[in-house]
Order: sequence, then C-alpha cells, then structure tokens
Amino acid sequence: MFVSYEHPRPALTVDCVVFGLDEEDLKVLLIRRELDPFRGRWALPGGFVRVDEALDDAARRELAEETGLSGVFLEQLYTFGALGRDPRERVVSVAYYALVKLGDHRVKAATDAREAAWFAVDDTPALAFDHDEILPVALERLKGKVRYRPIGFELLPPKFTLSQLQRLYEAILERPLDKRNFRKKALGTGLLVELDEVEQDVAHRAARLYRFDRRKYERLEKDGFSFEI
Amino acid sequence: MFVSYEHPRPALTVDCVVFGLDEEDLKVLLIRRELDPFRGRWALPGGFVRVDEALDDAARRELAEETGLSGVFLEQLYTFGALGRDPRERVVSVAYYALVKLGDHRVKAATDAREAAWFAVDDTPALAFDHDEILPVALERLKGKVRYRPIGFELLPPKFTLSQLQRLYEAILERPLDKRNFRKKALGTGLLVELDEVEQDVAHRAARLYRFDRRKYERLEKDGFSFEI
Repeated sequence: MFVSYEHPRPALTVDCVVFGLDEEDLKVLLIRRELDPFRGRWALPGGFVRVDEALDDAARRELAEETGLSGVFLEQLYTFGALGRDPRERVVSVAYYALVKLGDHRVKAATDAREAAWFAVDDTPALAFDHDEILPVALERLKGKVRYRPIGFELLPPKFTLSQLQRLYEAILERPLDKRNFRKKALGTGLLVELDEVEQDVAHRAARLYRFDRRKYERLEKDGFSFEI
Repeated sequence: MFVSYEHPRPALTVDCVVFGLDEEDLKVLLIRRELDPFRGRWALPGGFVRVDEALDDAARRELAEETGLSGVFLEQLYTFGALGRDPRERVVSVAYYALVKLGDHRVKAATDAREAAWFAVDDTPALAFDHDEILPVALERLKGKVRYRPIGFELLPPKFTLSQLQRLYEAILERPLDKRNFRKKALGTGLLVELDEVEQDVAHRAARLYRFDRRKYERLEKDGFSFEI
C-alpha cells in the first residue's frame, strides 16, 4: 500500500533491551541482523511500528518474532530520536526494557534476525545503529528502579535463596553488598515468604528457599507503601 | 511537498507539560487550541515533529512558538502511542516536562494557540486528546524525581528562603513537611549557600536568603554523590 502525506514524517520503530541473569552475571539479549543496514552486526531486537498497533504491542511482537520470547516483564524506557541514527532515513525509536527468567525461556532467532544470543552486559560487541547508547540508559534505569520497585524478582526463578537474591542485586548495582545488611533489608520488606523447602542438588549445605509475595506487595502499594532494598 | 511511503506510518508529535510555582501552588501551563480538532479546548502545548528535527528541538520549538517560553529546563517524560488518541489519524506523541521560574517568564500565545494560561495542577479544565492522562504521569515523575535530583531549584528564583524551598516541596509532594526536619535535610545536602542578604519588602521578620550551589553539585555528582531531600 502507498500512502501520501503532506509533510515527510519520521519513521517509528521500537527496540528492546532484554535483561536476564544466569549463574555468573547480568546478560543482555542481542540479535544478529539478517538485513541491511548493518547486516551481520549485533543489535537490540526491534523493528517498525505498524500504523494500527499500540507501542507496547509493537515491542512485544518484534521481541516474539525475532527472539521467540513472550509473556515477559516489559516497560518503556526512553525515545531516541537523534538525526542520523539510521543511515536509511529519519527513524525515531521508542526503546523498551524487558526482564526475563533465563530458565523459563529458550531464545530462537527468526524473521530479520540471523541469530539470537545472550551477552554479559559489560562485554557486548559494537552494536548497530545507536544501540550502544541505548544499552547504558537501560542499565541505569534498572539500577535506579531495582531499589524502589520489586522488579528484580522478574529475573529470578519463583523460588530462590537469599544468596541468589543478593547476587542479583550485586550484578545489577555492580558492587558487592554486605551479606548481613542485605538480608536484614530484604527480610525487612516483609515481602519474602520463607518456604518449607531447601535447595536441591547442591554440593554445599542446602539453603532455605523463599518466594516473593506479589499479592501482598500489590495490596500494600495501593496504600502508599514504598518498597526499598 | 508530498512524499510516498511503502507502508502507512504513524505521525509523530511532541507535547510539553510545563510546571511553574507561584505564591500559592504548583501550576501547569495550558494553551487554548485555535484549530480543529478540539478547537477552543485547553491542551498541552505541542505539535508535529519535523523530519529534520531532533525530538528535544521540536519540543523547544513548539513551546516557544505557542507560549513564548524559551531557555527552560526540559526533559523527556514518556511516549504516548495508544490507538485513537487523535481523531484525525494515528499520532504518537513524545511527551516532555519542563520547569519554569514564574517570575522570569511571561507567556504569550501564538501560532496554533489562541490563549496561554497557568492553571493550578489540581484544578485544570478537561483537556484535548489524551492530555488528561499525560498530566498525572508528569506529576508523578516530578514527585519521584524532586527527592533525588535537585530539579526543584528550577522552579525557584536564584535567591530563596528556606520557607520558599519547603513550600516548593510541599506543593510537589502534596503533603505538609515538618519544618525542623526539612531544614535539617535541606542544609544537610551541603548544597545551599547562605547569603549575606535577607528578604526585602516583607511584613514579617525578613528571612535569610540562600542559593543552590549548582557547580558544587555537578562536581560531587561526578564522584557518585547522591542528592536526597
């Protein structure tokens, strides 16, 4: 279909910064571009917004198409609109960040992506477009937000140990945390439920498992409660 | 000029939520629309992004054109892209918020705006488009940000009393603050410089004037210092 407009207008895309956590560190999901421009280069998953599609829907669709991921935590990050960020034409991109439990999801490249893979956030290849500017903005947002919103749990399995939770915060905040202080703060939120279970198949002494009480958090949040860790 | 595209694409606009503070309360700047749709209705100042214009520049241009304001603090807020938010066609809008010292600026409607005026944030008329949804998002951002970034000073004159500063925080946070505690916190930031001057022309006992030490803040910020009030 061809459409005429009175004035030339910027094209609109979405891009997704998808974070996951494994045993070692914080990871970001990248795809290898199948098409020009930047063919063969790694990039954030994303693509053009359809004229009849809400922005969040466009982000979820592109993520599913290019990486196979769906049903993940996704929030708008920032809109990048510098001139010249795309060699083809003027393109404005609404960036999102997503948080994924690595165990639940297997990524699978498709459509415009030749390959999809997880990279340590501090060891990514040079990215296509201005994606090397988008990634640090997403990291800063995650760093700021994880302390006053319980979004970190999106990166953990439903049942986790306090050491796993601490490792998550250390990976995101990029600094070691004092174990005693951290546990006091985490348990002090009143939002961790101690389970009647311990870790399985570990060489060291099996640690207690906990879960995050999302329902309680949502109830408290309505009354103006502030999460803080 | 007419341009053809292979696919129909959303139009792109910017909208600005401009906050100011007067003796009484927190105000927002609205314009009365001169053109359809919503002709005669109050709205946030804004308009279409040009194809060769960065987003921030578009926001500053529209603000200047429609209200006469320039050189103000301006930051991107969020991008609103729900279907049907504009009756003409699919329009995605990048919203900004701006902070203005009321004494410095006189607003003056022009171009697409018939009138420009300040309204108390809790007493605005029904706005055009989805602007009634954008305003509370801007207020929430301001509320969250004023506590950990020294942006509130953008709303005050260069020299201010501690009472003025407290009134600013009370207006934004929408709750009374304990005077002694507030002063301790504010002075505790180490960023208020006590001046050798007091208020002029006041009926009550003239209070001491202070200024915000922006240079010191910028220096400290580089070393990871966190502002908190």
